Formats: sequence, structure tokens, C-alpha cells
Amino acid sequence: MRLFAPLAILLVPATLLAQQSPGTNGVGTGPGSPYGLAHRTVTSPEVLPDGRVTFRLVAPKATEVLVQGDWPGGLDLAMARDASGQWSVTTPALQPEIWTYTFVVDGVPALDPRNYNVLRDGTRYMNWVLVPGPASALYQAGKVPHGTVTITWFPSTRLKAARRMLVYTPPGYEGGTGRYPVLYLLHGSGGDEHAWNEMGSASVILDHLIAHGRMTPMIVVMPNAYWDEHAALDHAFPRTSQPPGVGSGRRDYDGNEQDIVDDLIPFVEKHYRTRPGREHRALAGLSMGSGITANVGLKRLEVFASIGIMSAGMFGNGTNPASVPPEGVMLLEKISPGLLTNPAATNAKLKLFYFSCGVDDTRITYFTKAVEDLQRRGVKAVLKTYPGAHEWRVWRSSLVDMAQMLFK
Amino acid sequence: MRLFAPLAILLVPATLLAQQSPGTNGVGTGPGSPYGLAHRTVTSPEVLPDGRVTFRLVAPKATEVLVQGDWPGGLDLAMARDASGQWSVTTPALQPEIWTYTFVVDGVPALDPRNYNVLRDGTRYMNWVLVPGPASALYQAGKVPHGTVTITWFPSTRLKAARRMLVYTPPGYEGGTGRYPVLYLLHGSGGDEHAWNEMGSASVILDHLIAHGRMTPMIVVMPNAYWDEHAALDHAFPRTSQPPGVGSGRRDYDGNEQDIVDDLIPFVEKHYRTRPGREHRALAGLSMGSGITANVGLKRLEVFASIGIMSAGMFGNGTNPASVPPEGVMLLEKISPGLLTNPAATNAKLKLFYFSCGVDDTRITYFTKAVEDLQRRGVKAVLKTYPGAHEWRVWRSSLVDMAQMLFK
Repeated sequence: MRLFAPLAILLVPATLLAQQSPGTNGVGTGPGSPYGLAHRTVTSPEVLPDGRVTFRLVAPKATEVLVQGDWPGGLDLAMARDASGQWSVTTPALQPEIWTYTFVVDGVPALDPRNYNVLRDGTRYMNWVLVPGPASALYQAGKVPHGTVTITWFPSTRLKAARRMLVYTPPGYEGGTGRYPVLYLLHGSGGDEHAWNEMGSASVILDHLIAHGRMTPMIVVMPNAYWDEHAALDHAFPRTSQPPGVGSGRRDYDGNEQDIVDDLIPFVEKHYRTRPGREHRALAGLSMGSGITANVGLKRLEVFASIGIMSAGMFGNGTNPASVPPEGVMLLEKISPGLLTNPAATNAKLKLFYFSCGVDDTRITYFTKAVEDLQRRGVKAVLKTYPGAHEWRVWRSSLVDMAQMLFK
Repeated sequence: MRLFAPLAILLVPATLLAQQSPGTNGVGTGPGSPYGLAHRTVTSPEVLPDGRVTFRLVAPKATEVLVQGDWPGGLDLAMARDASGQWSVTTPALQPEIWTYTFVVDGVPALDPRNYNVLRDGTRYMNWVLVPGPASALYQAGKVPHGTVTITWFPSTRLKAARRMLVYTPPGYEGGTGRYPVLYLLHGSGGDEHAWNEMGSASVILDHLIAHGRMTPMIVVMPNAYWDEHAALDHAFPRTSQPPGVGSGRRDYDGNEQDIVDDLIPFVEKHYRTRPGREHRALAGLSMGSGITANVGLKRLEVFASIGIMSAGMFGNGTNPASVPPEGVMLLEKISPGLLTNPAATNAKLKLFYFSCGVDDTRITYFTKAVEDLQRRGVKAVLKTYPGAHEWRVWRSSLVDMAQMLFK
């Protein structure tokens, strides 16, 4: 008894919902149930041919319903109520992209009960809708060979406990004998080991790029970038408390260095069929993860030959004058002596030095200047910018581009 | 900049939320932000020492807020509003268990914005809270060796495409050389390949039982029990549509048999270090998955030597007289000739014949009678009952018990 009822169950008035056990597995929502049938005609979201998106919610008792999305401008859209108590609103035309949103019902965020597509970003849950088109086709699961995503744990020396990570292995890895280069990919502040695969659609993107011969098949390791966290919050222990590190706001790049270089890489190279040597290892990260990437990866160029820096705040943030380091891009020289003063040696070492930022990111001015200064000094660096601010559509685009440049 | 702000972000009025990009990665929620600080004191849920749970929600604009949970009785709890617009309610004392709940704000379901613990059951999202105690300790991630959960795809002959599954391998599997027995574990109606690991806490339970020497280490394969589905809805393609089979309500046990016996098992035995032979294979399922288990597993006893039937409706459901088969437990004889008429042969074949049901399940009367009839005919069957109805706390308890009986 499946029908469409499970999609409708959350739309019914509370008094009807109470007749069902919320913990049951679809029971009581069969074809004979009035709930499913009554709400089948409510579709939300509905993507229109021109890219506009209509949202709908049945909420007769609500007095105000908004939609908050990450579309350009970030405007709240006020939904309008019809006589039956159904609310709706239509966005302007949106580009092909994954857009996230939440309803706000009388001031309280609520998921769209008609949309089972939900993402978690750290501690927040939101719906998503894909506007189809060439630019978003890579984010949509396709009938292509699928890699495998493994959720496993590696021992942390400092934490004296296991830390959780996701590992993508490309199609053909299982049952094959080949060895693969490895991209170590770090999330940003507030994220965790699921961030790149969930918000960043990593495995879906990689499946497509590999299927179409657009990238070198590789292993992608997505650890929790907080070296002092065991795991994403819901898998930390005790599961109802916060893991160490949350709330401290501290940065301890020595901790990250030991975690990545001494613990994580040896574990990965022992348990996966990796290609040996620095030229087959890349380290990349977004935002906070880019700070770790710079401070660990550029310091340890004997370990990594490719570096990716996405949306870094280390060169300054337009909203905070105190965030601008007086030495500008030369702060990288402090991390990695010779990096800027001996560009020939740097270029010989770095197979890829990738930088990316959103054009509406408050970091873009300082970020772009830093990379241009780097280039002016003779260091070969790739600078890419994408529509968007400090947000996942920039980082998905970054992964698409960077993955195609790595290990060539 | 992490602090507690990410936990508070969803509590702020919509006009404040609009100042942030919902798609950003914790940006704008640092210690300087008013939102985080203003709401830090709101704790929800709060588990009191006696097992009562207090829920709180800041919702000054709401006119009615309920909490719907899967606690016994399934009553909606009306939250009371204080002068500041904060709502709260406290449950009666709850047993040590994972309890799920959702708020209903002016008729619309809403996740608790202060509780990042969220589960998905099919297309529905809900919060959960763990009331600690001996009985729920197995559901709480612990500092024990962790197995690995792999999300991978196997080729389906009938579907002519890949199907997604989760595979649990026990601690020590990676890097080891040993071979393991395999439990094939099926979800119920409306579920998918994530159900057992998410709603059922499978990997957490297995880690604990293995760490404490209470079960034989085994591989646990959790496929999508709908043989004609590619994957959980959010990984189906196109990702914004429903996969085939949803809405059809059809049962096609031939499809399941081919899927499990001809496609899934050979794939698993090729790609994982399994112990060969029927005595090292078990098939078990809950609700709809128990129907598949009976129709495939009992029919193919040359493949499986252990069978688990949880909360099956095949013997009748108290709410539906038409669901009661006139032949009673003899319907199993139709699936597997000789099963009841030659109990000595059955007992020689079946290492474990496990049955379980919730004491408040509407199926319990017919289910219990069927198993007792089976036992009366001389078939060795284990019958377990647990507090609860047709719901996950019964199935978590079932997994805990059944796992300890398998492959001994």
C-alpha cells in the first residue's frame, strides 16, 4: 500500500495526523485513507518551463507564510492565501541550478511537506529544487556508472578516538586492480564530513564527469575538517550532545596537519588502492577548509602537488576591515617560505594551484587581488569566479572545474 | 566562527533570517551576531532525569503549537505560550528509547529548530530524542570500534539499471582477510535502502553488539526492497521525480526473487569477503519486507538457512477482516511445500526461524496465532514480542535480538 499517501501525510490537520503513529512505516496512509487523496493535487515545488518555481502549502490556520530561498537577492517571498487555505507564490525565473528554500509559517521555519528533497547544512535542514538545464545537469543523478561512497572511521592520534569520513571511489574501483590519485576535500565552518557529498553533490558530479571522460578517475576523501570532532553531530557520542570543538571557535592548524598528514593519509593509503607520491595527492577546501588547505597543504608540499583554495577569507573580507592582513598574499610566503619568492621552484612543485570565489562573495576583492599578485610574481595559479556569494552553488561549480584540472 | 549560532539560526524572525543567505555555510552567524546569543538559552528537547522530555519553541506569531510524537498513546501535546512568545510542553515520563516527534505550528509540521537530530522515514522528516538508559544505550553511538557503511550500486537484470544499497561491514573487515556471514535485511512499505540504518540505527546497534561479543560479526546488506526502484527518492533520476514503482502498489515477488537471489547475492559474494553456502546467509524483513522474506526466503531455502519475519501482515490485520487468509499459517506451506508438513526436514534446514511483533500492533493476534500454530506442528520458531505497535522501536529491538541469534 504505497500510492502517494506518504507524500501527503504531513499536510493534514493535526487532528487527523494524530490518528496515525508518526513512527510507523507508511501504515494507515493507503489508498483508502482520505488524507492522501485529498491532497494529491497539491504540487510543490513546481518548476515551470521558463525556470520560475511555484511553491504551495496547505495551511488554513496560518496567518503568514513566507518562502526563503538562496536565489539571487535572497528575498523572502510572501505567499498568498486562497479561499481554501492554500498558500502559493511563484519566483522570478531562476537559472539552472540547485536552489534551497524553507517555508516560514507564522515565524517558524518549516520544510515543504510535499518535497522530499531535503539537505542538511551543518545543523540546518532545508528543501531543495533543481531547475533543469545544461548547467545543472551535472547535479542531477543520472543513468551513468555510479561510484561508491563509503562512510568509515580512521584513528586520530590527538583525539585518541576514531573520526568519521566519507570516501568516494570511482566506478570500476570495486572488483578492479587499478590505483588512483586522491583528492582530500575539506568543508567549511559549520559543516561536517557529509557536507561535500550532500550540499556539494560531490558523488553525483564525479559520476557524471567520469562517465563523460572529462576528469581523471580519482578517490575523493571527505573528512570532518574539525580535527577534534569525532563525527557529524548526529553520529557523535553521546549522540545527544555536541562533540568537542563545537563552540570553541578555535583554529589549530597543527592539529589539522597532524590529523591529515600523519593520520588520515596513511590510513587512506593503507586501505585504498592509491597511487603513491605527492603528484597523486591534492588538498582542497572551501572557506574554513581553504584556510586549512593553505596552512597544511602549502606548508607540506612534499606531501601534496595540487592545491585548491575556494572562497578563502584569509586575504580579507569586505565586511570586516580588520580581516585584511597587511602582508596581503605574502602571508602564503610565511606559511611556505619560497612560495612567492622563488616562483620557478613553486611552479615546478605545484601541478595545480586552483583558486575560486563567488562574484558576490564579500571576500572577492581581496581574494582576486591576492591571486593576481601571486600571478604577477610569476606563480602559476588558476583563478575562477562563479555566479553567487559565499555559498554552495559556487563550490559545486568549483568542484566541477577543479576536478577536470586535477591529475592531468 | 562556529559557536552555537548554527543551532539558533532557524529560530529568528523571518526578517532577520532574510539578512543571511540560507545557502551559506554558517556565515554571518558568528559570535558578533545577535541571533545566536539571543536564543542560546532556548534548549529543546530537554530530557529530564526522570525521563520526561520538555520541548520549547520561540514562535511569538503562532496561535497554536502542538508536539506530535510516537510515544505510547500517540497523543498530540499542546504547547503553552508564555508572555515572550516561547512555547513549551513536557511529556509524561518516557522509557529509555529513541522517540520521534515533530512540531505542528498553526497546522503545519515543523522541525524543532534547536534539535539537529533528524530522521527520514521514506518521504517524511522528523526529529528524534534519545531518553538514555540501559535499553537505549545500544542506539547511542559509542566509543567502540566502528564498522563501515558503504553506499554502492548493483546491476539489476529486470530494471536494466543499477540499484542502490547500503552495506555494513564489521570492524576489522577492512585490512583483514576473514570471511563473514551475510544478513540481507529488508525495510517496509514506504521505506528505502537507508531505512534500517537511519530509522533502525542498524550500524550503531551492530557496532555495540560486536564490541561486546554479543553477536557473530557479519556483513549486513540493506537493499531497496522495491526491486523496481533505482534508489531512495532523492538519489533517483531524474532526482526531482518519483522512481518507477511508486504509486503502483503492486507486489511482484518474482521480481524480488530475481533481484535478491540472481542479482544481489552474486554481486555481494563477488565484491565482499563472504562465507559461502546457505548456512551463512540470512534473509529478514519488517512488514512489507517480511512478506518478501517469506515469499523469497522460504521458497529458496537452498539459498538461505535463517529467516526473520518482523511484524508481518500476511496472517491478518485486526483492523481489516479481509486481510485474514483462510488457511492461516498454512499459507507458508504454499510458498514452501513441506515447510509445515515435514517439520523434521524444516528444522534440519532452518538454523533460525525468527518472528517478532509489537504487542500493540494490530497484527499481533493473527501473527502470534500463526507462529504458535507453526510451533504446534513441530517447527522450531522463535517468537518475540516487544513494547510498541507497527513501528521502529519494535524493529530496533528485533534487530538487537535477532542479530544475537544468527550464525551461531
